[in-house]
Amino acid sequence: MGWTRKDLLTMQELEPAEMGLILDTAASMKEIAGREIKKVPTLRGRTVVNLFYEASTRTRTSFEIAGKWLSADVVNWSAAGSSAAKGETLLDTAKNIEAMSPDVVVVRHGAAGAAQLLARALKCAVVNAGDGAHEHPTQALLDLLTIREKKGHLEGLSVAIVGDIAHSRVARSDIHGMKKLGMTVTVAGPPTLIPPFVQELGVKVSHRLEEAIADVDVIMMLRLQQERMTGGLIPSLREYARYWGLSRATLAGARQDVLIMHPGPVNRGIELAPEVADGPYSVILDQVANGVAVRMAVLYLLVGGRTQL
Amino acid sequence: MGWTRKDLLTMQELEPAEMGLILDTAASMKEIAGREIKKVPTLRGRTVVNLFYEASTRTRTSFEIAGKWLSADVVNWSAAGSSAAKGETLLDTAKNIEAMSPDVVVVRHGAAGAAQLLARALKCAVVNAGDGAHEHPTQALLDLLTIREKKGHLEGLSVAIVGDIAHSRVARSDIHGMKKLGMTVTVAGPPTLIPPFVQELGVKVSHRLEEAIADVDVIMMLRLQQERMTGGLIPSLREYARYWGLSRATLAGARQDVLIMHPGPVNRGIELAPEVADGPYSVILDQVANGVAVRMAVLYLLVGGRTQL
Amino acid sequence: MGWTRKDLLTMQELEPAEMGLILDTAASMKEIAGREIKKVPTLRGRTVVNLFYEASTRTRTSFEIAGKWLSADVVNWSAAGSSAAKGETLLDTAKNIEAMSPDVVVVRHGAAGAAQLLARALKCAVVNAGDGAHEHPTQALLDLLTIREKKGHLEGLSVAIVGDIAHSRVARSDIHGMKKLGMTVTVAGPPTLIPPFVQELGVKVSHRLEEAIADVDVIMMLRLQQERMTGGLIPSLREYARYWGLSRATLAGARQDVLIMHPGPVNRGIELAPEVADGPYSVILDQVANGVAVRMAVLYLLVGGRTQL
Repeated sequence: MGWTRKDLLTMQELEPAEMGLILDTAASMKEIAGREIKKVPTLRGRTVVNLFYEASTRTRTSFEIAGKWLSADVVNWSAAGSSAAKGETLLDTAKNIEAMSPDVVVVRHGAAGAAQLLARALKCAVVNAGDGAHEHPTQALLDLLTIREKKGHLEGLSVAIVGDIAHSRVARSDIHGMKKLGMTVTVAGPPTLIPPFVQELGVKVSHRLEEAIADVDVIMMLRLQQERMTGGLIPSLREYARYWGLSRATLAGARQDVLIMHPGPVNRGIELAPEVADGPYSVILDQVANGVAVRMAVLYLLVGGRTQL
Repeated sequence: MGWTRKDLLTMQELEPAEMGLILDTAASMKEIAGREIKKVPTLRGRTVVNLFYEASTRTRTSFEIAGKWLSADVVNWSAAGSSAAKGETLLDTAKNIEAMSPDVVVVRHGAAGAAQLLARALKCAVVNAGDGAHEHPTQALLDLLTIREKKGHLEGLSVAIVGDIAHSRVARSDIHGMKKLGMTVTVAGPPTLIPPFVQELGVKVSHRLEEAIADVDVIMMLRLQQERMTGGLIPSLREYARYWGLSRATLAGARQDVLIMHPGPVNRGIELAPEVADGPYSVILDQVANGVAVRMAVLYLLVGGRTQL
Repeated sequence: MGWTRKDLLTMQELEPAEMGLILDTAASMKEIAGREIKKVPTLRGRTVVNLFYEASTRTRTSFEIAGKWLSADVVNWSAAGSSAAKGETLLDTAKNIEAMSPDVVVVRHGAAGAAQLLARALKCAVVNAGDGAHEHPTQALLDLLTIREKKGHLEGLSVAIVGDIAHSRVARSDIHGMKKLGMTVTVAGPPTLIPPFVQELGVKVSHRLEEAIADVDVIMMLRLQQERMTGGLIPSLREYARYWGLSRATLAGARQDVLIMHPGPVNRGIELAPEVADGPYSVILDQVANGVAVRMAVLYLLVGGRTQL
C-alpha cells in the first residue's frame, strides 16, 4: 500500500496498515543511521519548518536531524521572540509560514487540536509533534518500532503504562496505536492521575504498580511533569516515588524478558530508580535512536512517498 | 545594467534602475519557490550571517530560507546570550563576525544607522534588515514586487499608508521607493503618529482614514506596535481601532480593485478587521511569499551578481 | 604521525606532536576560508552537535561555521529550554544525544570536568569548548596558530598572560600548551586573581604590568569577567583599568614587534584601551579567523582523520 494522508496528526485516526507502513519505512531508514555517511538525497530541495510553541530541544532536534539526513532544508521557528510573542494568532503565524512554501510544518503546541487546526488551514503537510494533552503520534510510533524490534512482533503483546495517564499525550497516542495493533494495555497510577472513563479506550485500569506490571511484556513509565509535583495531585514526591516509582525491588515481580520504556527526560529517583533506568531491561536509548528513524520515515512518506513506496 | 553596490542599506539611496534590477531578479527567483525541488547551487560555499539584535523570527526565517534555497550556509547570530550581552560593542561583534569570513551579514538593530555603521566597517556585504525607525529596504522591495505583480506596473499608482507613520521604518522605506518609482503616496494617521515635516518627503497627509483611502490603488496598513498602545500616543485601543482600523464598512468607499497590504504581524481587530485581513483585497500572504524571493535576489546580487546578470 | 585520540579535552594531555598536527592541519584548512567557495565535502554525512550549557554565540558559531564548511550537518542544542531545564542530568542528556548518532559532540559547560565525563560515557568524539575554569583547548590552539603565523615559530618565545588568571580556562589551556612547546610564560595580575601554586605550572609570576610585558614576544590580555567586577576581587573597575589595563602609555616599555592578543569579547577601556585593541600590534581578529581553521582541523582529525592524514 502507499501513503495517502496529507498530514500525521493522531494515532487515533491511523489504520493498522498505515502504522505498519511507517514502521517498515522507519526500519529501513534506521539503516542509514548506522552508516558512516548518514545522508541520502531523498528530500533535497524540500523545506521542513519546526514550529515549536513549547520548548523541546529533544524532539525538535530529532526532527532536525531526520530532515538533515534526508537532505531537506530545516528551519527552526521558535515561538519565543517570534511574532507569536507579538500577539499574532497561531493560524496567522502558520499562514505566514505557509507563504514561504515549506513542504512540511512540524508543530508542537500547548493546546489540544492545534495540529489539526493547522492541517485544515495549510496546503502543506503538517506533523503533530505534541498538542497539549491530546496526542504525540511520532512518540507512539517510535515506541512501537522499539517494541517490534525487541520482540519481533506487536500483536498479542501486553503493556502497562504507569504514571500520569490523565495529562499524557504519550499515553493517549500509545493506547490508540497499541489497541489497534492488537495489544493489551493496562494503565496504572494514583487515582488523581487516571482520567475518568479511560476504560472506554479499551484499557484495563490498575491502582497498584506491582499488579499492573506483574505479567506484561512492556512497562512504559511516564515522566512525572514538574507541575504535577507541585499542583496538589500527588501528596509528595517521596510518596509518589515509593508507590509508583520502578525500583529493582518492584521489578522482582515482572517477567524476565520485560522491556522498560520511558519517553524521556527521566526524573531519576522518581518514576525510575537509576539502576532500572540504566539496567538490562531498559530500552530508553533505543527509543531515542528509533525516534530519528520514525521521523525520517514520516517526513519521507508525507513529502516524497505519498503515492507509493 | 549590473549591480555595483557592496551593501543594501536604504531605499533612499537606491536608483530606480537598481530597484528595477532587484525586482526583476526577485521575479525570476520566485519561480524557484514554485518548483518541487527548491534548490539552486548559486551561492554554494557562501556564508550568510543573520545578526539580529531585535527578535524577529519572521524576517530572520525569510532570509534563512532565501539563503538555503540558494545553497548558502546560513548562520543565525542572535544578540541574546551572545557577546553583545557581555558588553561588546556592535562594531566589535561585527568585526569578529567578519573575521569568520562571511559573504553577507544581515543585520537587524534597534538603532537607526546601525547597518550603515557596519557597512563602512566591514569588507563583506551588509543588508539592512531594519535599523530602528530608519529603514527596512527588503520590506519595501517586497511591497513593490507585490504591487507590480498585481497591478502590472508601478508608475502612476497611488498608495495610502495608514497608521503609525512616525515610528515606522517600513513607511519610510516604502515612501522613498514609491516616490522614486513615480507613485503617489498619502500618509494617514492620528496627528501624534504623523511626524512633522513628513511633507518634505513628497507625500500628502490626511487625518481621516476614509479620505485617505477613497481613491487609491493600494492601502498599506501599518502594525500598531504594542509600546505605542501603552505609551500615551493614542487615547485607547478601542478608539484607534474605530478611527484607524480598516473594516468592511470603511472599505465601502475604496476602489473595487484596491490592494490591502500589511507588513505583519497583524493585530486583528485593531488595524485590520479579520474579514478585511482575510478578504479578497488582501495580498498580505503574497507579501510574505515575495519576501523570500526579494531576499534571494538581494543575496544573489550582493554576492554572486555584483558585476552583471 | 596520525591522530589517535577519540576526543579533544585538554591541552594538558596533548603531546607536542599532537599540537603540531592540529596546527599544521589548521594552517591548511585556513586556505579554504580564503577561497571564494568555502566548502569541501570532507565531513559530508557527518553530524556535529553543539551542546552549550553556557551561552557563547561566538564559540558556537565558530564551530558551526567550521562544521558547515566541511559539509557536516551541524545541530545546536542549547540548554535553555531543553530537557536540561527539565531536570535531566548532563549524562542523560548526552546519552540521549548519542542515541541520535552524532559523530562529534562539542560541549561547553560551567563545571570543570564536564567534557571528560562525557568523553568517558560516549562512543562518539567529544570536544571540550570550555569547562568551568578548567580548560578551553581550541582557544589555546588558535592562540598558538596565530603566534606561529606571525612569528614563524613557537619554541623559545616568551608570553605574558595578564589579568584574571585564577578563573581563566583560557590561561590554563594556554599555559599548558605554551610550556609544552618550549615557550616561556609569565602570568601577571592583582594578587586576588592569581591562583596559589601557579608556579607549579612552570610559569613566572609578576605583580606589575610594566615588568611583565617589558621583554616578551606576546602579551595575552584576559577578559575581566563581569562577575569579577562586582565580586569584591578588585577594588574598582577604574583602579583595575589603571593598573592592569593596556594603554599606549603602558605599551611604551614593550618590544617593537610585540603581539597583543585577547580571547574576546573585549571590555574596551578596561583591560584594553581602544587604541591598543585596534592598534598595529593587535592580532585579535586573526585569532578569531584562526578559530574557525583550528575547529575545522579538530573536527576533521576527530572524525575523518583518526588514522592518518
